[in-house]
Amino acid sequence: MNNGNETDAKKNKASDPSYYIDKKETVTGDKPGDVRVRIVTHKDFRRIGAGYYIPRHHALDPKSGIGRLYFLFKRFLFGSPIESELEGEERLDNPQALAVLSSDALSSVAYGTEEIMRVLILCGTALLALTLPLSLAIVVLIGIVVISYQQTIRAYPSGGGSYIVASENLGRLPGLTAAAALMIDYVLTVAVSSAAGVNALTSAFPNLFAHRVEITLAVIVLIALINLRGIRQSGNMLSIPTYIFIVSMLVMIGIGVFSYFTGRAPHAVPYPMETMPQALTLFLLLSAFSQGCSAMTGIEAVSNGIKVFKSPESKNARKVLIWMGVLLAVMFFGVSFLATRLGVTPDPREQETIVSQMARLIIGGGPFYYLIQFSTAIILLLAMNTSYADFPRLSSILAKDRFAPSQFAFRGERLAFNYGIIALTGISMLLVWVFHGSVNALIPLYAVGVFTAFTLSQAGMVVHWWRERGEKWKVSMIINGVGALTTGIVTLVIAVTKFSHGAWMVLIAIPLVISVFLAIHRHYELLAKETAFKPEELSSTPNIQVVVPVSSPNLYTQKAINFARSLSQNISAVHVSENMEEINLFKKEWDSLFPDIPLTIVESPFRQLLTPLIAFIDALRDQYPEGTIAVVMPEFIPTHWWQHFLHNQTALKLKAALLFHHGVIVLSVPYHLNK
Amino acid sequence: MNNGNETDAKKNKASDPSYYIDKKETVTGDKPGDVRVRIVTHKDFRRIGAGYYIPRHHALDPKSGIGRLYFLFKRFLFGSPIESELEGEERLDNPQALAVLSSDALSSVAYGTEEIMRVLILCGTALLALTLPLSLAIVVLIGIVVISYQQTIRAYPSGGGSYIVASENLGRLPGLTAAAALMIDYVLTVAVSSAAGVNALTSAFPNLFAHRVEITLAVIVLIALINLRGIRQSGNMLSIPTYIFIVSMLVMIGIGVFSYFTGRAPHAVPYPMETMPQALTLFLLLSAFSQGCSAMTGIEAVSNGIKVFKSPESKNARKVLIWMGVLLAVMFFGVSFLATRLGVTPDPREQETIVSQMARLIIGGGPFYYLIQFSTAIILLLAMNTSYADFPRLSSILAKDRFAPSQFAFRGERLAFNYGIIALTGISMLLVWVFHGSVNALIPLYAVGVFTAFTLSQAGMVVHWWRERGEKWKVSMIINGVGALTTGIVTLVIAVTKFSHGAWMVLIAIPLVISVFLAIHRHYELLAKETAFKPEELSSTPNIQVVVPVSSPNLYTQKAINFARSLSQNISAVHVSENMEEINLFKKEWDSLFPDIPLTIVESPFRQLLTPLIAFIDALRDQYPEGTIAVVMPEFIPTHWWQHFLHNQTALKLKAALLFHHGVIVLSVPYHLNK
Repeated sequence: MNNGNETDAKKNKASDPSYYIDKKETVTGDKPGDVRVRIVTHKDFRRIGAGYYIPRHHALDPKSGIGRLYFLFKRFLFGSPIESELEGEERLDNPQALAVLSSDALSSVAYGTEEIMRVLILCGTALLALTLPLSLAIVVLIGIVVISYQQTIRAYPSGGGSYIVASENLGRLPGLTAAAALMIDYVLTVAVSSAAGVNALTSAFPNLFAHRVEITLAVIVLIALINLRGIRQSGNMLSIPTYIFIVSMLVMIGIGVFSYFTGRAPHAVPYPMETMPQALTLFLLLSAFSQGCSAMTGIEAVSNGIKVFKSPESKNARKVLIWMGVLLAVMFFGVSFLATRLGVTPDPREQETIVSQMARLIIGGGPFYYLIQFSTAIILLLAMNTSYADFPRLSSILAKDRFAPSQFAFRGERLAFNYGIIALTGISMLLVWVFHGSVNALIPLYAVGVFTAFTLSQAGMVVHWWRERGEKWKVSMIINGVGALTTGIVTLVIAVTKFSHGAWMVLIAIPLVISVFLAIHRHYELLAKETAFKPEELSSTPNIQVVVPVSSPNLYTQKAINFARSLSQNISAVHVSENMEEINLFKKEWDSLFPDIPLTIVESPFRQLLTPLIAFIDALRDQYPEGTIAVVMPEFIPTHWWQHFLHNQTALKLKAALLFHHGVIVLSVPYHLNK
Repeated sequence: MNNGNETDAKKNKASDPSYYIDKKETVTGDKPGDVRVRIVTHKDFRRIGAGYYIPRHHALDPKSGIGRLYFLFKRFLFGSPIESELEGEERLDNPQALAVLSSDALSSVAYGTEEIMRVLILCGTALLALTLPLSLAIVVLIGIVVISYQQTIRAYPSGGGSYIVASENLGRLPGLTAAAALMIDYVLTVAVSSAAGVNALTSAFPNLFAHRVEITLAVIVLIALINLRGIRQSGNMLSIPTYIFIVSMLVMIGIGVFSYFTGRAPHAVPYPMETMPQALTLFLLLSAFSQGCSAMTGIEAVSNGIKVFKSPESKNARKVLIWMGVLLAVMFFGVSFLATRLGVTPDPREQETIVSQMARLIIGGGPFYYLIQFSTAIILLLAMNTSYADFPRLSSILAKDRFAPSQFAFRGERLAFNYGIIALTGISMLLVWVFHGSVNALIPLYAVGVFTAFTLSQAGMVVHWWRERGEKWKVSMIINGVGALTTGIVTLVIAVTKFSHGAWMVLIAIPLVISVFLAIHRHYELLAKETAFKPEELSSTPNIQVVVPVSSPNLYTQKAINFARSLSQNISAVHVSENMEEINLFKKEWDSLFPDIPLTIVESPFRQLLTPLIAFIDALRDQYPEGTIAVVMPEFIPTHWWQHFLHNQTALKLKAALLFHHGVIVLSVPYHLNK
């Protein structure tokens, strides 16, 4: 159709071997003489088949200067895009999987005991001894939850998050409740983990304490950037710090227990009480227990992440879950045991953690102490990473089910769910900022969500077994029933005891989040219904009103009018002018050249061009609310940069001005000088 | 055509008396059944006649929040728009006109003498006495120029600027030379006047000296804002400071002369010489003369502004010009006389002006001294205003003659030539900044332009009289001939003596500016030629290739396809996808629903939507360089703010991304939820 261009294409072919010509291609429905819009050959595209193209990578690179700068900046920050074909996760062997999936749970060891003690200390140093029985109760609870999740993993071998289990078995609302509780939980995990990780650092380096909020926010941004890079969780990379943490904690606990039983353990100098001791009440006791339950967060990670295990996935996952439970129980109970035996008391100014004090007492302030503090800090930060894996995954599932904005289901250039990562980062940074990075202030908000999700998930499993009635269904049902009941009671205890300390916020937030899910769902459902395919629309013709702004009847006015004619029968030329004399001359000339196109004059009292034109277009739109107003105008395309200064660029300005005017389309017919 | 709408219109009519319905209107060329695009009635427009509307003022107000804020800011800064009808300048009586038009010329008194002395001082304090004969020579020159301009005013009673006189009589190139010289001169006037005005201030308040550049720049911006407000030069407003300056200077000179001749005049303590005195050369003498010639700038203002005089304009203008010449001569010579007699020497650090030193000697440091300094500062600033009137006026004449960008011919909302004002401000601020606000450094650049324009204008007048040969043409020709010869010689003297001090810049700048004028002219001429009306184009149909990006075949895909069909026969639906499975399903569904619209698949390796789509559109454009690519796509218009978050706004993003892609038009077919 364009001979000059074909010659060019042939010329290019010689220099680029990947270039080929396939002009004989036919498409069903071709009528003779019908020109089809199609790339026949182009250096930017690889043609796979009839009407099937893949862009070559260079075609996706930006062309403009600023665009290229932004592109390089993005590359530097996030790395090169990853092709979809490279999706498909690495499988991890069991030790790697234990390291990757248990960082959230095991990191709780760093603050669990301290949270119990911070409540008991209110009743005086003596009652800190109660830390031990409370820790034992929590260890039992860990046992129950681990056994319950064994069942979930067996029933949902492809991954059974609380949202899936609850909505499949209990219905939409319980499912959304679990999802809301979990999402709040994930946000809190990021806030608590980053704050606690930074706390471990500031215990070792007290002069950093004044900057803990800024450091915490910076850490969150760093982890978010790493996740936006979509770095696949490499087993080895995450294994090392986790195992350093496990081993060093176990060694410290071992030395401590040995010293204690050999009577060589030092005793801590307790911090002075700053207030009068209260009497111990049941409420205070339950509060201390509730606080300790924060140690149980992250146990659900294994059942969410079944897909990362090697075959047999389900069996391996269950093994790892047991290992995780045992390690968590031993380390948590060990810390609690030693803390009470060594007489460690929580620092009222929150400057040194219990674990740091213990480590200092047991092993002194040498390199091993710093190893413990560093590995604690790092595992707390890795715990955040569990949320960064789960929050975007959950929100993408919600987006697919139309309960979250569709953008959340979209994988970015690095295969990460960018929108989920950004949302998680933003909300958790806000939280850290509002709570001034205080772990103690954030923890009460934390456990309610976890235990709500536990309870709903276990309750869902009960219904699951009841419906399935497979082998040994009664045993399984009882196990999950006990789990649901226990976690349900703990949820209530936590909700009541921590209500005034901030749990009320979570209890308000969950229904709010659910109502957002439902509103989003209604919107998408309505949209889907209203925009469903309607066979009767196939033959309707749109009602287009064309406006052609004209300044002088030159060649490009002609071209715009010709373009307008191909669009609609309803054309009006509009001339904006301030000068009566000029108007009369123009009208006379117009009517002789375009007798069939009615001319409308809009007088501009203040000599503006765009403002009266836009006002006229808006008025026209008010008169034709059902139709579409198409504004057709010539646009001069400068061939040299300095020509920009010689033209008003009215078409460009009009396009920009009408970008947000609904029902109005600006079509510019481009022209440029040939010389 | 739309019954619901008509009812609405009728309802509105009742409440708005200015609303009326005139639906019976017919237009020549109406075919039966043809729907015309026309506002029949609308509250925003007043209908003057068939197809003739004037927007009501409220229709031109911005609708959006940010727009309204910007609008209010503009109103605050520049005032409300002025209707074109209010154009037509006030006439001034002779004393007012003298004040308004002579501020540039008379303000030269503030620095003329000092410029001569700054050269002579190089040969030692004794040779400063030569200031007087040099000043006398300049007074003679003033006389010659005033008499010459008397002729110009007589010959061009409607305003005879140098550009008009030179191009009418000498041809395009001399005309453009005069224009270039004048425009450079105007820029320098703004820079010199603002710097000199601020210098007068810092002489009185030496602690402001360190900030003189910033103050000078701020003053230029202030004067520019006042001129953008388009405040009509009110005779009274400008008269007062000018007459205060004239009277106080004359009084000071009078007291000084009286004291001198009565032998009571004090003698100045000369500044110590910082360098060895040079020998006096002819070159130095001529240099001093050249510097003094800067006192003659602004004499041409009267002949540019003939239109502001009351009838008989020409006669009044000539009277005022003589008055101005006499005042200038007396004041300039007076200052030179006293400066030499009182032994005042120029401050080597440029901190106190000659006039300030003289005033201090003659009348002491009291209130009268400050009145002199203030009125000097104000008249120097008013001198800038002459440039702000003349530069935009000259550039608008050049724009009409197609030697300057067309925007310069456009009068803004306040009837000012905004582009000219902004250009003048920008260039003169740059100059002040580059020269650190030093009057002494700027003056050498100054006088060349003025005298070039004088010479060309007078030479033009010689040719004028030669051609006209009216009454007494020989006398007139001789007068202008003497003027042309004298100013021509002075131009040469200035160019030679100041060449190495900066005049070379002006001598380079003038041809550069002329070549810019010519390049602009060539561009517009070529454009006019290429875009001239071509009768054969009336019947041509444009070659439009339509691309419809489709994601799923819903109702709005249908509407987009229907719209596309009304635009062209050549339609291609483009589906961007990353998923082979989805592609096959989609293709099958598409082919069954739209068998006549060929589907193109563009695979997106990195899951982007816009980037491959834009690459594809660009590739298509490469293939059809002669045609227009129209991208038609549905655009969701949110009805609630939160719905923005639930949609990708792909159409909006695509519109923005393709705004600068030549030959590509994005047409969005708007849709929104009905609930």
